[in-house]
Amino acid sequence: MHRTKVKIVEEALDANNTIARANRDDFERAGVKVVNFMSAPGAGKTALLERVVDQLPGVRVGVLEGDVQGSMDADRLATLHVPVTQLNTDPSFGGECHLDANMVRTALPDLPLDEIDLLVIENVGNLVCPAEFRVGEDARIMVSAVTEGEEKPLKYPLMFRACELVLINKIDLLPHLDFDLDRFLHNLDAVHPGVERMLVSARTGEGVEQWRDWLARLGSGVQVPV
Amino acid sequence: MHRTKVKIVEEALDANNTIARANRDDFERAGVKVVNFMSAPGAGKTALLERVVDQLPGVRVGVLEGDVQGSMDADRLATLHVPVTQLNTDPSFGGECHLDANMVRTALPDLPLDEIDLLVIENVGNLVCPAEFRVGEDARIMVSAVTEGEEKPLKYPLMFRACELVLINKIDLLPHLDFDLDRFLHNLDAVHPGVERMLVSARTGEGVEQWRDWLARLGSGVQVPV
Repeated sequence: MHRTKVKIVEEALDANNTIARANRDDFERAGVKVVNFMSAPGAGKTALLERVVDQLPGVRVGVLEGDVQGSMDADRLATLHVPVTQLNTDPSFGGECHLDANMVRTALPDLPLDEIDLLVIENVGNLVCPAEFRVGEDARIMVSAVTEGEEKPLKYPLMFRACELVLINKIDLLPHLDFDLDRFLHNLDAVHPGVERMLVSARTGEGVEQWRDWLARLGSGVQVPV
Repeated sequence: MHRTKVKIVEEALDANNTIARANRDDFERAGVKVVNFMSAPGAGKTALLERVVDQLPGVRVGVLEGDVQGSMDADRLATLHVPVTQLNTDPSFGGECHLDANMVRTALPDLPLDEIDLLVIENVGNLVCPAEFRVGEDARIMVSAVTEGEEKPLKYPLMFRACELVLINKIDLLPHLDFDLDRFLHNLDAVHPGVERMLVSARTGEGVEQWRDWLARLGSGVQVPV
């Protein structure tokens, strides 16, 4: 039974990768760079996007907002006058805990690809399954909030490995936590040695500029180390 | 395709419920009450358990620790001299993002059921799938940290509905956050009207006593409203 299950999982991931490549081809043809943006629930993905999506000089940003239900985050981002498309995994996709390539593919017709240079796909808040499913992105960014503790890279290694950039968010709270930043960074390097990382606070704006620059480089076609 | 998928999901949940009932029968025969303990990653489940597991007068507690990988939380709890059993979803169960009834069933032979009165099953950190799978528990408790924001009940309604008790953790940080507690409680009541809730801080110990009492009542066989 174990072997059968592993085989089914492998086949599902193979099928996903095939669709992800088709998505990527379509994005490339449209000249759109794509970010898969991931984190645990409440790590601050939407708040971090609010800090940057309308402030990338010369780069037109669109957002594909993945949620199990509702459109709260999409509504927040729409007030910034960037195109936002909602993708709910419930009920159409069985309430899935992640986005996969096929879900993103079904949303393609709703995306204004000829009006944007950079598409940020905000994944469902979850540190497990989103890391397993490519959706056709150029780069993956994950957010880890310091409120979640230092051991998260060791407990969810696949997520911390499956990204090109780690945003360490909520650093404004560091004075009020027992969080040991050096230990977190040590754990991060243990699972993904040398991965690019930035200390940020969506709340105060600290460190956000470097992330904005990183996105702007990606959106304007400058090579980022992926 | 959509209908096929829904059918497969329904059949899987039916099969899970059958095994969950078998687990529950075994727990009842052994005179053990069982809690399914759930939250997002980093909400403080293990820290909250550290505050109570060795401090329930007359109630012997055991822990079944669910993680994708590793045994960090189990190691922490084992220092309190309560029996802790590790259950990893990776690799034996394909790195699943939740525990299901069958995984718990495979762990049954390793559980010292005749030495405990209350088993706490610490689920994988995730606000989506754990809520869909009963594992044979008497009660479900979920933890929501105030650092995760006020809108979590609206974004993950199934999780907030699928529990008998909500622990609102990290309240020691309230003075340093823009968190609106009234709005959170309003959102909570919107998805699960009147569900029992407790304000706690695993860090300072504030409010922990009422949770300890709740667990003690469950573990000693006093009816809790489930």
